[in-house]
Amino acid sequence: MNLKGVNLGNWLVLEKWMSPALFEGTTAEDEYYLPRQLSKEVYKARIGIHRAEYITERDFVAIRAMGMEAVRIPVPYFIFGDRAPFIGCVKELDKAFCWAERYGLEILIDLHTAPMGQNGFDNGGICGVCKWSQCPEEVEFVLTVLERLAERYGNREALWGIEVLNEPITKGAWKMMDVPNRYPAVDQEMAEGSAPNTLAFLRKFYEKAYERIRKFLPEEKYVVIHDGFELTAWKDFMREEKYKNVVLDTHQYLMMAEANGCGQTVEEYKAYIKEHYEKEIEEMQKYFPVICGEWCLFNSKACGHDTKGGQSVLNGVKGTDAQILTSEGKREIYRDVAEAQLAAWEKGSGYFYWSYKLLTDTVNDPGWTGWDSWDFGRCIDFGWFPSEKNDRKGGA
Amino acid sequence: MNLKGVNLGNWLVLEKWMSPALFEGTTAEDEYYLPRQLSKEVYKARIGIHRAEYITERDFVAIRAMGMEAVRIPVPYFIFGDRAPFIGCVKELDKAFCWAERYGLEILIDLHTAPMGQNGFDNGGICGVCKWSQCPEEVEFVLTVLERLAERYGNREALWGIEVLNEPITKGAWKMMDVPNRYPAVDQEMAEGSAPNTLAFLRKFYEKAYERIRKFLPEEKYVVIHDGFELTAWKDFMREEKYKNVVLDTHQYLMMAEANGCGQTVEEYKAYIKEHYEKEIEEMQKYFPVICGEWCLFNSKACGHDTKGGQSVLNGVKGTDAQILTSEGKREIYRDVAEAQLAAWEKGSGYFYWSYKLLTDTVNDPGWTGWDSWDFGRCIDFGWFPSEKNDRKGGA
Repeated sequence: MNLKGVNLGNWLVLEKWMSPALFEGTTAEDEYYLPRQLSKEVYKARIGIHRAEYITERDFVAIRAMGMEAVRIPVPYFIFGDRAPFIGCVKELDKAFCWAERYGLEILIDLHTAPMGQNGFDNGGICGVCKWSQCPEEVEFVLTVLERLAERYGNREALWGIEVLNEPITKGAWKMMDVPNRYPAVDQEMAEGSAPNTLAFLRKFYEKAYERIRKFLPEEKYVVIHDGFELTAWKDFMREEKYKNVVLDTHQYLMMAEANGCGQTVEEYKAYIKEHYEKEIEEMQKYFPVICGEWCLFNSKACGHDTKGGQSVLNGVKGTDAQILTSEGKREIYRDVAEAQLAAWEKGSGYFYWSYKLLTDTVNDPGWTGWDSWDFGRCIDFGWFPSEKNDRKGGA
Repeated sequence: MNLKGVNLGNWLVLEKWMSPALFEGTTAEDEYYLPRQLSKEVYKARIGIHRAEYITERDFVAIRAMGMEAVRIPVPYFIFGDRAPFIGCVKELDKAFCWAERYGLEILIDLHTAPMGQNGFDNGGICGVCKWSQCPEEVEFVLTVLERLAERYGNREALWGIEVLNEPITKGAWKMMDVPNRYPAVDQEMAEGSAPNTLAFLRKFYEKAYERIRKFLPEEKYVVIHDGFELTAWKDFMREEKYKNVVLDTHQYLMMAEANGCGQTVEEYKAYIKEHYEKEIEEMQKYFPVICGEWCLFNSKACGHDTKGGQSVLNGVKGTDAQILTSEGKREIYRDVAEAQLAAWEKGSGYFYWSYKLLTDTVNDPGWTGWDSWDFGRCIDFGWFPSEKNDRKGGA
């Protein structure tokens, strides 16, 4: 198995940098505060149009035409509409299954957020709050969401699998990402006590989640667990016969490699990819099918300046407007790091690019030069991504 | 000159069938009634997200990568924000110019609507009302809009030209389209007195518009006039030396050919295209550079049933959900009619496909089978459109 896929990020789980218009006129930095700062009517109108327009049938057609086989769809814990003031989005996921089945794509449902936060990232739903695993009733709630997803979609032809939780953070990443400072909490009282999840907790949660969803999920559908940013920590996990088709998901971004000390040259990126991504995936593939569920071509070298581990104007870090590199220069860097990363993912069982689409405007909004490489569609169109379609080159 | 372009339809001028979510919960069939049925806040929120997400930088990248050279951008008469309750959209057009200049595309600004209606179509802004040319103050208002557009964008590198008014209807088309019945007016009193524009009026209006905008528009930028659905009626028009770089725009849809009696087979479509489109364009090209500013691959044959001149569930006409043709069968029809039409446009000076993108859901919404052929992106991805990119084939 070497599954080629893209994430449908920012469709059903929002990230401000990917569609700033949704957050206009508010100080909200994450999805938690959006319905709390907008009137009910305006929130409903914004989110309704966004969900109806951001991803549609035509995107499934395009993704298939780009040579992809699958989509990973991040969904929020409030997908079933039972967590006011949020508005559910299960009808959108229903439509996605019909599109996928028409056009021959598979779907990995990815529960991307948990109430009270599983990582404190903006994309976890609430900045600076990471207390979900300390709230037993919210852990149970998440399990019921997973059960309902498994029951509703378990027998759908397009279902590839369900990922039980995206990026539950553990100690090392919590420290390296410097979560409390990079993602400051709005409500200090709410954030108080935030801490990384323990591996012991995650193991228990994954086992419970497996049991709760496998009863609805035919054996051939995958149950996907995220590595908690500790790829090699899972060798002795779920070795028992009863666990079938469990996939280990690891997320690897070059900006994190940079934050880990990788130098900002193509040679050093390639060496890091070989030494870390490739070696560790190869090692872990002995235990689980391993996918790289999130990655992209973004790196500081191609931006033309140090992004300090992928920090942007949203983090108060100055970006650049200048086109420092030529089109050819950028293409060369991106194709090199793409090939190196794709070679690493081939040691495992597949990948999902982050992300299929984003609306970040590198022309009209200051400071975003280089951030278009997060957008798979633009990577294909610019000829940055080595694909069957790499003749489709734009004028970047 | 053989300009290849696409329309950015439904971005700044709405058409309900192209993005139904915008009209949800209302009985509005056109843009006129949308802000009159929604609260100010909700209208603003819906339109704001739509404009920010429907067309973005990444679409300009994609359009370039599809081998296109230009975009025709329909704009409403309220673009400058001086016609409450509508909200202006000149900032969006500003952004489009920056994207176009970055990625090497040209822009034809197309004034697509006029107050009190120039055709009575939904896409003219208000169904069943066609009285603009009878209201001198509104004719003057439109001239001031054109002046302001010319002044603002006249010296922009990306500007290809300005089309002074889209599809002002004349007698023949008014009758054939059966406007009052196909596009029933909501307000009978307002519609009272609606009638097609006379060619005499249009000639005067075009001359005035030319004068008013040419003073801001460098000579090499085009002034585009629509043929009023009477392509061969303009031979003796603007023959004087002083008129420079005037382009004649004709719109040719196979659904109109069908309504004109063309049989619903590929052979008959091809014969009609040769006999009418090709011959008439060739003839008129002696007088003006002629572009086909709107056309598409849509036809009843490929839908698998008679669409009665392109009528849809919106007109209360039953469509089909069934996939009557195979993927190969559809592709063959579309490529045949595409090649025939492209050959006809080559007798002139270029074309703009209608439209680059639409959100019509042929999978989840009943009755829309076949309507995906209006979507240039999907045509490319399905391999229906013969282009440099025709290797990019999806699984339709």
